[in-house]
Amino acid sequence: MSAVPMSQSPVFDLAPWSQNHLARVEQALSQWVGHGAPAGLGDAMRYAVLDGGKRLRPLLVLAAYEAVCSGNSGAQSGVQATLVLDDAAIRAACAVELIHAYSLVHDDMPCMDNDVLRRGKPTVHVQFGEAPALLAGDALQAFAFELLTPDDSLIPASVQATLCRLLARAAGSAGMAGGQAIDLASVGVALTEDQLRQMHRLKTGALLQGSVLMGAVCGHAAATAYQALSDYGAAMGLAFQVVDDILDVVADSATLGKTAGKDAAADKPTYVSLLGLERAQAYAQELLVEAHAALVGSGLPDTRALAALADMVVRRSY
Amino acid sequence: MSAVPMSQSPVFDLAPWSQNHLARVEQALSQWVGHGAPAGLGDAMRYAVLDGGKRLRPLLVLAAYEAVCSGNSGAQSGVQATLVLDDAAIRAACAVELIHAYSLVHDDMPCMDNDVLRRGKPTVHVQFGEAPALLAGDALQAFAFELLTPDDSLIPASVQATLCRLLARAAGSAGMAGGQAIDLASVGVALTEDQLRQMHRLKTGALLQGSVLMGAVCGHAAATAYQALSDYGAAMGLAFQVVDDILDVVADSATLGKTAGKDAAADKPTYVSLLGLERAQAYAQELLVEAHAALVGSGLPDTRALAALADMVVRRSY
Repeated sequence: MSAVPMSQSPVFDLAPWSQNHLARVEQALSQWVGHGAPAGLGDAMRYAVLDGGKRLRPLLVLAAYEAVCSGNSGAQSGVQATLVLDDAAIRAACAVELIHAYSLVHDDMPCMDNDVLRRGKPTVHVQFGEAPALLAGDALQAFAFELLTPDDSLIPASVQATLCRLLARAAGSAGMAGGQAIDLASVGVALTEDQLRQMHRLKTGALLQGSVLMGAVCGHAAATAYQALSDYGAAMGLAFQVVDDILDVVADSATLGKTAGKDAAADKPTYVSLLGLERAQAYAQELLVEAHAALVGSGLPDTRALAALADMVVRRSY
Repeated sequence: MSAVPMSQSPVFDLAPWSQNHLARVEQALSQWVGHGAPAGLGDAMRYAVLDGGKRLRPLLVLAAYEAVCSGNSGAQSGVQATLVLDDAAIRAACAVELIHAYSLVHDDMPCMDNDVLRRGKPTVHVQFGEAPALLAGDALQAFAFELLTPDDSLIPASVQATLCRLLARAAGSAGMAGGQAIDLASVGVALTEDQLRQMHRLKTGALLQGSVLMGAVCGHAAATAYQALSDYGAAMGLAFQVVDDILDVVADSATLGKTAGKDAAADKPTYVSLLGLERAQAYAQELLVEAHAALVGSGLPDTRALAALADMVVRRSY
């Protein structure tokens, strides 16, 4: 009887893994964000970040890092090496969350989505004013790159530079910001499936995939594993958005923690408007299978956390 | 008769030096900014950047880089080494300008200064709308870090990481964004001279000083020279803001290219409101002397461009 590939193993329990890793992320964010900032700005930065989001992106960084380390037991086994890599991975995990948090602060502003509630709390501009919200978002983006480049650390410069490169690309005009710009320009416009996919790959996919790749870099992934994790990240990232489109239609606002039905109300193209609900659901499942297949092909011995995170992305209800 | 220190030499002509170096910066910015971005976003990014600003920050990067190289004739004389360093310096020069440009785009927005004209043209949000302006600013910040981390380049990873570190600090909550937050919170508030200095050191000083330090890193400055250039950058950066405060009072809007008298109208604390016009002018001169003294103490053989830029900062009329 052949062994079940570990990425498909039914015995991995995501909940305790997440709880344990989230605790490290929350502690690091709380320790770092807003300190050294003028009082008002620091408060707004901390309010924007320390609000109990799902932290999917940090978890992807850490899961990818650990998956790569599971294949590195020879080269990276020294305690010192592990601590250095752990520091890099935690910094990368926090940095992607800072980029995500800043994008929410700016997205919620009156000139963008004009949202007053986020995760059940007043949005940053409602709580602190528009100008402080704008500045807090700007400062959070800069701080993400500051976190990746500590000058008193043992993290190799090549890792620091690569992490900055991946994050800048994922966040910028060929990534998240670019996708938001396409989104803005697409209200009331009929997109083809290719155009919709491109918009989502940039808007949410780039940072989700970037999180996986940053984790892989922290673990010094070999080329084959890196490429497989890149494929995993692309499929999982797109699945995330397809499911978002589905939830906007099928969930209620209380469950979502944000306004349901907004996309349809805003006449925004979505996978549901383009494919219909059933085909959108089938597409999410296809992408999940793709993500799992990439993990199996990675050659990494333990990708169970990544597999479970992809499952969670597709099966979530909010 | 002893030689006049070169940083004080009267024979250096800044105009042709600036013209030559500006041409390289403009060409690089035009080549890089907005390409690969979705059309609307790329247009807004280019509009924000390619508008003929003074480019003081890029010139500071290049002048510091060349000053350091003037002391490096041994170690860095290979043509290959020079080309690599040149690439780093040009990228750093463009990166600081992108940060400056993004800060102007966001500053001009209705929730901040609500300015409709910048350098005689409609501001970005007037030309493209508020949401595209917000996104263009965000994308410009990310692109600054992307420019510093090219993956197909010979720029050493240690230089890339250090440049990202310096830029992130200069732009973030302990730099430019932090200074803007203090500025926002200071309207109608009586500041002490120490508090005013701290605000300006962050708001404009950090990025001006950071530009000098980034140029120094591109040239692999030794510790003594680096510290001297840091002192130069601090004095010159503060002088810039003192002169800004003076010009807000003594110049007219046409000369400034922006609204004169705005600080007083907004009841913002300035060096003029705190010290009076004459003492503010004397303080700018003191800072200029400090900047020159730091250059003389740097041990670098040719700091004439840096000296001339400090002169220009203090003697400018807009």
